[in-house]
Amino acid sequence: MFEAKIDANVLRECIEAITAVVDEGKLRITEDGFKLRAVDPANVAMISFDLQSDAFDEFRFAAKEAEAGGEAEAAAESQVETEIGMDFVKLLRILGIGRREEVELELDEHAQKLFTRMGSLSYTISLLDPSSLRKEPKVPELEFPVRVIIETEEFRRTIRAAEKIGDHIALGVDEELFFMEAEGEMDKLRLELRKEQLIYLTPGTLYSLYTLDYIAAMSKGMSHAENITLNLGKDYPLQIEFEMAEGKGKVGYLLAPRIESE
Amino acid sequence: MFEAKIDANVLRECIEAITAVVDEGKLRITEDGFKLRAVDPANVAMISFDLQSDAFDEFRFAAKEAEAGGEAEAAAESQVETEIGMDFVKLLRILGIGRREEVELELDEHAQKLFTRMGSLSYTISLLDPSSLRKEPKVPELEFPVRVIIETEEFRRTIRAAEKIGDHIALGVDEELFFMEAEGEMDKLRLELRKEQLIYLTPGTLYSLYTLDYIAAMSKGMSHAENITLNLGKDYPLQIEFEMAEGKGKVGYLLAPRIESE
Amino acid sequence: MFEAKIDANVLRECIEAITAVVDEGKLRITEDGFKLRAVDPANVAMISFDLQSDAFDEFRFAAKEAEAGGEAEAAAESQVETEIGMDFVKLLRILGIGRREEVELELDEHAQKLFTRMGSLSYTISLLDPSSLRKEPKVPELEFPVRVIIETEEFRRTIRAAEKIGDHIALGVDEELFFMEAEGEMDKLRLELRKEQLIYLTPGTLYSLYTLDYIAAMSKGMSHAENITLNLGKDYPLQIEFEMAEGKGKVGYLLAPRIESE
Repeated sequence: MFEAKIDANVLRECIEAITAVVDEGKLRITEDGFKLRAVDPANVAMISFDLQSDAFDEFRFAAKEAEAGGEAEAAAESQVETEIGMDFVKLLRILGIGRREEVELELDEHAQKLFTRMGSLSYTISLLDPSSLRKEPKVPELEFPVRVIIETEEFRRTIRAAEKIGDHIALGVDEELFFMEAEGEMDKLRLELRKEQLIYLTPGTLYSLYTLDYIAAMSKGMSHAENITLNLGKDYPLQIEFEMAEGKGKVGYLLAPRIESE
Repeated sequence: MFEAKIDANVLRECIEAITAVVDEGKLRITEDGFKLRAVDPANVAMISFDLQSDAFDEFRFAAKEAEAGGEAEAAAESQVETEIGMDFVKLLRILGIGRREEVELELDEHAQKLFTRMGSLSYTISLLDPSSLRKEPKVPELEFPVRVIIETEEFRRTIRAAEKIGDHIALGVDEELFFMEAEGEMDKLRLELRKEQLIYLTPGTLYSLYTLDYIAAMSKGMSHAENITLNLGKDYPLQIEFEMAEGKGKVGYLLAPRIESE
Repeated sequence: MFEAKIDANVLRECIEAITAVVDEGKLRITEDGFKLRAVDPANVAMISFDLQSDAFDEFRFAAKEAEAGGEAEAAAESQVETEIGMDFVKLLRILGIGRREEVELELDEHAQKLFTRMGSLSYTISLLDPSSLRKEPKVPELEFPVRVIIETEEFRRTIRAAEKIGDHIALGVDEELFFMEAEGEMDKLRLELRKEQLIYLTPGTLYSLYTLDYIAAMSKGMSHAENITLNLGKDYPLQIEFEMAEGKGKVGYLLAPRIESE
């Protein structure tokens, strides 16, 4: 059993963060909220998404097993979860229909449908068969020597500019300087921010190269966050973390580096 | 002889209501104003449009015959009319050119041209040969068991949502409930409004199915009206009525039902 | 040596005026500012562009020769200039990236690169080889019997309207009346402004026909000027002049007439 109410804007921002990486995936619902771990079809990018139940105006969840069980199982309820196959692109389209109001969600597990209601308008969306979806990835254990916290808009604007130049971008630090650099056939774009122009920076000397397409997509997904955290290494994956829903939602993107062929 | 002045916005809204159904047609001008009855090329939708002469800032009309005649004919003047073949799409494009000001219209029947002037910009539009246009349809006599008056925006938003789902929509009432329902391959959209959420509702139990393309076009034509009246039956045409120009313009759309094949 | 700072908006408006006629060209930099004379690839339109050095917040220029020379050459410094091959379309795209702030320009003549900086974002643009660019045209000596000064927006709106009608437009005067007239297959558009509706008019009786595509492009380039001066003759080129950057920038467009075939 799952029933919830949430601000339509909050839910839309969350789904936008997800669709930056995947169109569909297995969403896990527990007493604690929503959870998603998914990789993009090319295995280059991963998203970790968590939305706490208190980000919802109402949130009622009880796992199927627990409903059937007795008191003994009731204690184990918080461990159990329901996994649904969700077409996030479709859900986003639906959320774009309503006025900016509250949306009600209600899961019908037997029929494998999610019932959504915005005001007098209701929408029944068929769930995807979880067995048809990719397996949830194992999140790799990574250690990032450098962390940079930057205003989202500064980062996004540089990505938009870089898209006009080439197809990849370098992100790195040079002592107390953070830089983003894109090179085209004839032109070069470079953003340089000193430690004091950033919210946080671990000094160091390293950089990695990434495919712009992926970062550009992620850049759309983060548009509602004020700041983002970049975790960096040398020729190492990029991790981008940010919060949504007043800190009750957390998104982590992971992007494989592009190795320069010399 | 026909000469008139009218607020460019008012005229544009009227023409937008017409182009929702037909691109061109025979516009009848009488002492009382403008009148149009036309069906779309597929014979699925019909528009009735009337704009009273007092919706104009100035309106001077005299039928050709009357001009030539003596006093005896003068009494019959209000009966006579001039029919012009109008390309409404072109007229709409012209009205989009000017600033939001008054537009002057002047008919040259001999040359078969309509002269329009907005400020210092004038535009001479050649009329279409009425004999090349479809005959004016006979408006069928229909009796609608159910009438619903609804806020235009609520209706339009549901139509926009339904367009993302499928290609047809059901409109109906279920006791004191008005509903609109669209079904796609996997998803279902439903708007439900109780009598007290509507401006008016005749209770009943019936519905009809309509092709969304047509309703979507009509939905654009009604965008400047606050409320619309829906006249409904069981597997019956849909009539949509609304007012423009502060009640001095009236539009009626008629749309054939789509019969479900079972 | 060339280094300068300028309001990004001012520079963008200037480059927009240039790209209305050419995508690339030889920009001449002197102590007095920027200068460009260029014709479009079809040899139908020409632009003369001048931006005074005091339109810049900072402007430092010294020609290469002068740097190497002694005191004797220093006196001749203001005569010398540096010519750079510029891709204006690319520069415009870069200026669109930044926030609306100041842009710094720095020329590296040896590397043939222009370094631009907007805040923390820097962009290095490779210059074009001047020998690959068209020779600077000789500006013809013309005498225009008629001059009209008109509000830019009135002119632009008429051009936009005319584009919907046909592919050429007549500009002329008829005694104390200025007119613009476009004719399509069935329709005709005409703007008429009396002397008192204009800022200036030389009375006369003449007109010329021009290709709309070119005027429409120029019309975009002038969008930031309040008024434009039209210099006209009978079957004669059209000269359009306007100012930018608070009078410190001057643009002149020249467009060959279209001769009516009879």
